[in-house]
Parts: sequence; structure tokens; C-alpha cells
Amino acid sequence: MVAGLALTQEQRELLKQRRQRLGELLPFPVLLWAGGRSPRNFPHNGYPYRASSHFLYFAGIPIEQAVIRLQAGRLELFVDDPPPGAALWHGPSPTREELAAQIGAEAAYPLSELGSFSGEALTLGVQDAATRIQQAHILNRGIPAAPDLHPQDEPLAEAVVQLRLCQDAFALEQMRTAAAVTVEAHRAGMAASRQAKRESEVRAAMEQAICAQQMTVAYTSIVTVHGEVLHNEAYHHRLQPGDLLLADVGAESPLGWAADVTRTWPVSGQFSPTQRELYEVVRQAHDACIAQAAPGVEYRELHLLAAQVIASGLVELGILRGDPHTLVERDAHALFFPHGIGHLLGLDVHDMEDLGDRAGYAAGRQRSQRFGLGYLRLDRPLQAGMVVTIEPGFYQVPALLQDPVRRQRYDDCVNWERLAQFADVRGIRIEDDVLITPTGCEVLTAALPSHPEEIETWVMG
Amino acid sequence: MVAGLALTQEQRELLKQRRQRLGELLPFPVLLWAGGRSPRNFPHNGYPYRASSHFLYFAGIPIEQAVIRLQAGRLELFVDDPPPGAALWHGPSPTREELAAQIGAEAAYPLSELGSFSGEALTLGVQDAATRIQQAHILNRGIPAAPDLHPQDEPLAEAVVQLRLCQDAFALEQMRTAAAVTVEAHRAGMAASRQAKRESEVRAAMEQAICAQQMTVAYTSIVTVHGEVLHNEAYHHRLQPGDLLLADVGAESPLGWAADVTRTWPVSGQFSPTQRELYEVVRQAHDACIAQAAPGVEYRELHLLAAQVIASGLVELGILRGDPHTLVERDAHALFFPHGIGHLLGLDVHDMEDLGDRAGYAAGRQRSQRFGLGYLRLDRPLQAGMVVTIEPGFYQVPALLQDPVRRQRYDDCVNWERLAQFADVRGIRIEDDVLITPTGCEVLTAALPSHPEEIETWVMG
Ligand SMILES: [Mn+2]
Ligand SMILES: [Mn+2]
Repeated sequence: MVAGLALTQEQRELLKQRRQRLGELLPFPVLLWAGGRSPRNFPHNGYPYRASSHFLYFAGIPIEQAVIRLQAGRLELFVDDPPPGAALWHGPSPTREELAAQIGAEAAYPLSELGSFSGEALTLGVQDAATRIQQAHILNRGIPAAPDLHPQDEPLAEAVVQLRLCQDAFALEQMRTAAAVTVEAHRAGMAASRQAKRESEVRAAMEQAICAQQMTVAYTSIVTVHGEVLHNEAYHHRLQPGDLLLADVGAESPLGWAADVTRTWPVSGQFSPTQRELYEVVRQAHDACIAQAAPGVEYRELHLLAAQVIASGLVELGILRGDPHTLVERDAHALFFPHGIGHLLGLDVHDMEDLGDRAGYAAGRQRSQRFGLGYLRLDRPLQAGMVVTIEPGFYQVPALLQDPVRRQRYDDCVNWERLAQFADVRGIRIEDDVLITPTGCEVLTAALPSHPEEIETWVMG
Repeated sequence: MVAGLALTQEQRELLKQRRQRLGELLPFPVLLWAGGRSPRNFPHNGYPYRASSHFLYFAGIPIEQAVIRLQAGRLELFVDDPPPGAALWHGPSPTREELAAQIGAEAAYPLSELGSFSGEALTLGVQDAATRIQQAHILNRGIPAAPDLHPQDEPLAEAVVQLRLCQDAFALEQMRTAAAVTVEAHRAGMAASRQAKRESEVRAAMEQAICAQQMTVAYTSIVTVHGEVLHNEAYHHRLQPGDLLLADVGAESPLGWAADVTRTWPVSGQFSPTQRELYEVVRQAHDACIAQAAPGVEYRELHLLAAQVIASGLVELGILRGDPHTLVERDAHALFFPHGIGHLLGLDVHDMEDLGDRAGYAAGRQRSQRFGLGYLRLDRPLQAGMVVTIEPGFYQVPALLQDPVRRQRYDDCVNWERLAQFADVRGIRIEDDVLITPTGCEVLTAALPSHPEEIETWVMG
């Protein structure tokens, strides 16, 4: 492990409560593996270590190659002491007993003892294949790669979803620190834009702010003047004065908790009139969803609300024609807003997506076949303690707008000439992290401006 | 793939020469997989993609999930066109034919055709386990994880080592760009140190310089005031005015070629007298090895030369007692310089270490059991075109110096009281990347100062 990661007594107490709740939900023993390093180009050159989120949820800290056993609230740790000679390369390491005390384990054993504790245990497959093979070996059954599950493990997945859907004080403290650093990163990106020649320089300034705080990115950053490519991972484009830059960058705290924030700003420090008009449409959708987010509200309704606000705004701008409600029913909004309004956020940026749609979709629900709904990652009533993103957008995606089938289907309701006047907008997204509270919601990333004039001020420095 | 990565005609020609040479060395067909992404915390949140180095060596550019077939200089590409809908998320992609033209392939097929081209082919296992399973499936035999090989693939490993030991103009151009950016990163780190409060801030400044140039780190950065932990990956320590900071940070070019550089500097901008004395010992070892590096010289002799210079320097400082030559024979130098003088550098920071010691050790040679030699990663006569690191160091490692067995063994030759006067030195390393030329060598990273006064100037800004 993990120099510099010590848990407080309060954190340990909250971890214990998580384990007790699991014990109440599930009458079976559970084994959770932290997992190992994934090799990059050769075995000793691994990617930076990330423990399995399910392990982190119940153990609190990453402990490479460790396994925990949970039953009726009791915690046992299985981990080997470092091999002789490791101190030369990796420095002094905590002993097994010290690690056990750190996470509040009642007992601790070497990994060789794991086999005698594995009977009837449920598990969830880790991401690194080498450890997944160990899981299968210890449990003597197949452990499929995510999002598939062995049928025996379904009750564990259900219980974990039930626990992890709503965040406790431990999680929220971590997510607030990740959010705060993410806000700093976006400010650094805005401040760097006018001097930067390429996207990569803005990305570097943003990730520097995260790295300096001993955090890592929670996902591969998107920092691009081609925001119309939704998962753009290229950073080589030159910044031109009229460009909008879309930055979707989020920090992950040292204990593994994520933030996920997008802002879009003019490289020059000033939105053009057309950019500002479309930006305000997206911002209205963003603000409307946040105004409505509260316990009991269906997240899917927030998605449709955003679609409605965007459709209305585009009608007002003369880009769409017709009744906004009817336009949304026809999925015309999805020509310009083709993704979902957001997702769960927690230890994973798309929280628990290793379990497929088990976390995102309430029991009995499944993905819609509709073009305007099928990409929605979350379809549940909101509950106090959930953290979700709200991330409406407007994009001109050539693959959608030049698609002959779609052009024909929506020919009556799109004013293509008018749309052409907004050619200086390729992609806009505004994304914040929102905690559902008993009475409504709290925007964890509210310190970052979304108002266009404030953004201009930050870019202008 | 890989927006913004286009090969020149000259680069394509050099790739072709590599493939022709492979065909001359090996009468069998070869299949090389690029590999896929390794998942981080869930399948769609992968680590940044890195293609297999062996694939990159013969194809030139990373093409996710692609396979190449090589036989007698002929190149065939197997890759699938992106699935429908991918353009929405990932933007426009080159077609199979465009990719084939880019890398100079004579023919291109979908992956489904691979099975009919796989007969008797040799391969090398990739790092990601999911792709390794595909390799085994296509070739209908086991593909063990590195550094193990299926016996059938040994001749391919031998041929690849023979080719990759010496770098061609394509490789050297890439390594020079990685070296140049690495030099910038170290300068940025030196400049950031006086203002920085923690190691993480210096690391962030260094990696920013790499990220801004659209490169990535070739390995996990070491940036620490605890340089005595050789592979330190913690960045949380506060910087204190009297600290030395050791930074081992190297860039990887967009086509995958590595640099690997270490500098050690005083956080305050001024070496203490004791720090300067030990720094000069390490620098003399560094300079002596570079003065001797030339074709025909045994790399192991450079290691022993560094050991000799360090032992002499420590005798002069009164830390060691006795005849330097005898001290090295007794491995007394290794109390303070416990690692090897360096390693091969190329597409991998420890080049071809996925093949175990097949690249590092000449045929018939193997690792020494000696404490002062066992960690040497390279034991071959140098050849023109090889790129190696030269990286002597001095460390006070508690696990070595407090070890009762070692303390007793070396009690007659260590002046512990004198050593205690150098307590403000925990770790010093100076590492450069060195190209062996027909007449001697060229330091690819020579633009970065190693002279203590120049370093002080950079830190002072
Ligand atoms: Mn998001
Ligand atoms: Mn090195």
C-alpha cells in the first residue's frame, strides 16, 4: 500500500457500518479481491494501481493483492507480507497486522489461508484478468468478465447496488475533495487557454492541478475543440481564436472517489453571438434539471426535461420547427443531444457500471430502443444520498446530421439553412455533480462558474 | 486509431526494412497482435491505450485490436472497421484500407479471416490477458504470460531481440524527440521546486511538460525526497529546505519510444557541502562510464567501472576504508549503489523486458549471484546503434545499512561515524540516455545539466 493513506477513527466507523449493512442484506459470506496491477508494455511496467471499487467500498483503502472476507459484519483480511528485499525497492511497508488495524479487520491471515475460508462465498469479478483467474481458482467456479456475473453472485451484486446507490458521510467527504480539485483543474484550464496553442497544453494544465493535489484523473480527459466527438481522446488540434473548447475532466481522490465535470469555453475569452445563444440553451437545460432534482423524481424525467428545454430553445432560435413536446416525442432533440442527461457517480465515474445496468436501471426496467432515450445510463427514482451528474449538451455531429435516413426523417422540422449559421458551435456540454438531499439537491461542483460572463472572465484571466 | 499520427514515406521505408530483416532471420510466418485496452475500474473506463511494443516495431503506429502477419518481408493487416455508431462517440476513423496504406501493408482483411492465415505462425504474447486468450485461440496452443514463451516462439524472440537491440533512424528520431521533451520536463521540475510544498507539485509540473507535447510518461514517475526508496511511487512528502529531490521521469513519444532520465537537485537551490561531495562522486561515475562507452565494450565492465569510481570516492570521503578494487570485489560499493548501471532503452523503458533476460543477457550468460551484480539488467558487449542508460547512484537505504548481517560483514570497511555526517543525503542518481556510435557514444539527453552549479542555477530560476 499506500504511503500517506491513513483512515480516521470516524472513517473506520463508517466502513464498519457499510459492512454491517451488507451482513443484514446478505446471509452469505463474501470474498472481495483488491486486484493487482495491469501490465502496460511489460510485466514490471504497470499502469498506476487502482484497487477494485467494491473492495475499496468495504476496506476503505487500496491494498494491492489483498482479499477481504465479510460475513455478518465481521471483516477478515488476507494479504501477504512483502517478500524479502522489497524494502530496497519499495521502502518500508506496513505489516499485515498494521493493515488489519487500519481497515478495522477482526483478523488477518496470509493469502495461503484463503482456500479454507472460501466455502460458499459470493464474489464480484475484478478487472485484471490475472486476479480473476485466482478468484475462479479459489472459489472453484467460473468468474466471468464484467458485466457478466456467475448466477450465484447475483444476490451480492443486488446488495452492493443497494448499499452503494446512496453515499454516506465517508463517501461525500471524499467526493467533495475530488470536486474541489476538479474545480481548480477547470479554472486552470480556462486560465491556460488563451496562451495555449494546442488542446494538449490545456489538458496538461488541468491534469497538473489534479496531480499536484496527489489525485489522479477518474477517467481519460476530454479536452477538445471537436466536442462533437463525444469521447474524443485526441489532443493534437490547434486552438483557433473562434473555437469553443470542451473540457470533460474529473479528479479521483486518493481513496478512489470520483468527480466528473464538463465546461465549454471560448478559447479567445469571448463567446460569439451564435455560441452564446446555443450555450444559453444548454445552460437552461442544465439549470432546469438541477431545479427539479429531488427525492422521488424519476431521473428519466430529468432527461426528458432537458430534451424539452433544448427543443424549445432550438425552436426559439429557428433551428427546429414545431411543437417542442412533439419534437421530443419524435426524438428530434437527439439529433443535437444524442446522449443521456447523466449517470450515477461514486467510486466509479459511471458508478457500478462493472455490474452492467444493475445499478443504473431499477428492477424490471431496461434500456429503451428509442434513439432519444437508449443512451440513458440511469433510470431510477432519485433518493436522498445519490450523487448523479447533470450534463446536457448540444452537438453538431456529422455522423448524425449527414445521415441520409435521419435527414429525411427530420427534414420537416430542421431548418438546415438556419442551422448553418451556427457553424461555429461543434459541441457544448455543461456537467455538474449533484447530491440529492432530503429536500432537493446540492451541486457539489457549484464553485465552478457556468454563467457565460463568469467563464469569459476566467478565460481572460 | 490514432488521430494525428501519420507516417512519412521515409518512416514507411524503414519499417519495411525491419520486416525484410525479420524475414531474412526467420523462415516462419509471424502474427503480432497490437492488443486491446486494459480496463481500470470498469470495462469502459480503460487505462490509456498502449499497443504492444513488438507490434509497434513492425507496424509503426498503434492500431487498437489489430493484428499483422509478417512473412518474408510481406505485411498483411487484420483489423475490423469500427462498428456502426462508433463515429458518434469516437469521430471519423480511417478505413481498413487507409490503415493498410499508412503502415505499408500489402493486403488487409477483417479479423474474421485471421484463422485461415494462422497456420504455423509464431507469435509473442501481449500484455492484456483478453487479447492473449484470442492469441491462444487463433493459434490453438497456449500463450503464456511474459516473460514465459511457448517453445515454438523462441526463434521469433531471438530474431526480434537481434533486430531491436540496435536502433534505426526511425527509432532514433523518435527517441530524440522523447529525450528533448524529457529534458524540458526536468527543467520544469527544477524550476517548480522552490515554490512547491510537496513532491506531488514537482511531479505535476514535470508531467505537464510531457502532456503538453502530446506525450505520456514511459513509466511511473519517481519524484521524491526519499530517493533511497528505489522505486518510490509516493508523492505526499513535504519538501524541506535541506532536502535533495530525486526525479526519475521520462517521456514516451506518440509512436511509443521511451526516454528515461534522472536528476537529483537541492530543493533550496543549493547543495550542502556534504550533498555536493557525494553528488560529485556519483557524477564522476556517470562521466567515467560515458567516457568509456563504445562498441565492443562490455556493459558489465561499465557497471564495475562505476562501482570502482564510487568506491574510490567513498574512500576519499572517509566513508569506506581500504583498497577500492578490493572493496568492489567484496561488493562493499553495493551497500550504497545496490542497483545496476542501467539497461537497454527503446520502445520499452527496460527494452524487451517482456522477453525476460533474452534481450539483456548475451547467449550463455545469466544473472550473477553476487550482491553487487545480480541487479544488472544488461550484460552484453555494446554495439553501435544500441541505446542504453547510464545511471549510477548513491543511497542510504535503511534496509541495507541497518541489516545486521551486512553491518557485520562490512564492519571493517565502513566508517559509520563518518557516514553519519552525510545524513542529509538519502538518495542521489544521475541518469542519461546514451546512443552507442561507431566511435564511442552520444548522450541523447546531454542538453540537461548534470553539473551541480548549472543545476543550482536552474532551481534558483
Ligand atoms: Mn459524465
Ligand atoms: Mn533507468
